[in-house]
Amino acid sequence: MNHSPFRTAAERQAEREQKREAVLRAAVAMFNSRGFHTTSLDDVAASLGVSKPTIYHYLGNKDQVLLECVTRGVEQLRAAADAVRAVPGTGFDRLGEYLRRYAEIIMDDFGRCVIRTDHEQLSEESSLRFRALKRDVDKAMQGLIAEGIADGSIAPTDVKLAGFTLAGALNWPARWHKPDGRLTPEEVATRMVDILMRGLAPR
Amino acid sequence: MNHSPFRTAAERQAEREQKREAVLRAAVAMFNSRGFHTTSLDDVAASLGVSKPTIYHYLGNKDQVLLECVTRGVEQLRAAADAVRAVPGTGFDRLGEYLRRYAEIIMDDFGRCVIRTDHEQLSEESSLRFRALKRDVDKAMQGLIAEGIADGSIAPTDVKLAGFTLAGALNWPARWHKPDGRLTPEEVATRMVDILMRGLAPR
Repeated sequence: MNHSPFRTAAERQAEREQKREAVLRAAVAMFNSRGFHTTSLDDVAASLGVSKPTIYHYLGNKDQVLLECVTRGVEQLRAAADAVRAVPGTGFDRLGEYLRRYAEIIMDDFGRCVIRTDHEQLSEESSLRFRALKRDVDKAMQGLIAEGIADGSIAPTDVKLAGFTLAGALNWPARWHKPDGRLTPEEVATRMVDILMRGLAPR
Repeated sequence: MNHSPFRTAAERQAEREQKREAVLRAAVAMFNSRGFHTTSLDDVAASLGVSKPTIYHYLGNKDQVLLECVTRGVEQLRAAADAVRAVPGTGFDRLGEYLRRYAEIIMDDFGRCVIRTDHEQLSEESSLRFRALKRDVDKAMQGLIAEGIADGSIAPTDVKLAGFTLAGALNWPARWHKPDGRLTPEEVATRMVDILMRGLAPR
């Protein structure tokens, strides 16, 4: 413990990170609940009891804030894809685990923002970056499907189309699922993935 | 055949219907390719070589034109749901047939417009109407799933969530499928529905 009234460089850095995180979380929550166009950085600042220049200081302008929100969502998806590599079993098992995690992230703030953000809301430069990030997400899904086909646990299929089918189904709750809904994100994720992995026929 | 230079009332009515249809098809194609906000009724009129008042005469203002486009898409989906009632076999078979037709409609002009239209693009009154139409589409899907569960051909599942899972997957091509794409709408529909009905595991 440091009992000096002066904070160390490390403490100042940690505090800066905490504040940046608080600003980012306030922004994404407001973009999701009110819509991007109808939310100003003044609104975000007011919700935290700070000034608009404080937001600029930590995250930059509104375009940069939105790009940071969607980047964070994509990073969560990428971390989930990395994490399932350690799941024992078949490619089918790993894909199923990834899809459950994917669906839960999509119903959480940053993932929801990834799905709800239209390219025309971003500057040209940020939109190009966002496209590249989403291509990485598509590639991760397709990679897991291909690995399942390779080990025989997934039936041969058009990998790209299968990836779009799964993503389309799992992205949709970002629009309709409400945090206080009838089913929790975990329940929605489990049931949707069960249908997607096993189909609708009785077993 | 009527050889009089004067057209009959029935001929005038048929011609009016043809013109109205031509205007509607030009509008929906332009909304889909350029976006609703960036398309004016002047653009639609110019593409047909007519004046803007001609568009108003046949379809009304831009809000009314868009509502008519999405209504037409919903009617196609409803007609597909009605048509599959005559398909022999089980509820599972009828649902599969409906999903294939649904996917093809979604990749066609009016269906594509149903998926791409956001509520803020419509007037409050039209938006309420559009919501009601979409609820009917959800109900039709859920009804077919419930019938499959009732006859034992579909595994018991949360009917509403299953409907959203299927619709989410099948609505997504309205955003990514291009008419000149690698796969035809029929191929996309058949392969997506195969995954959704049978799952990803080898059979």
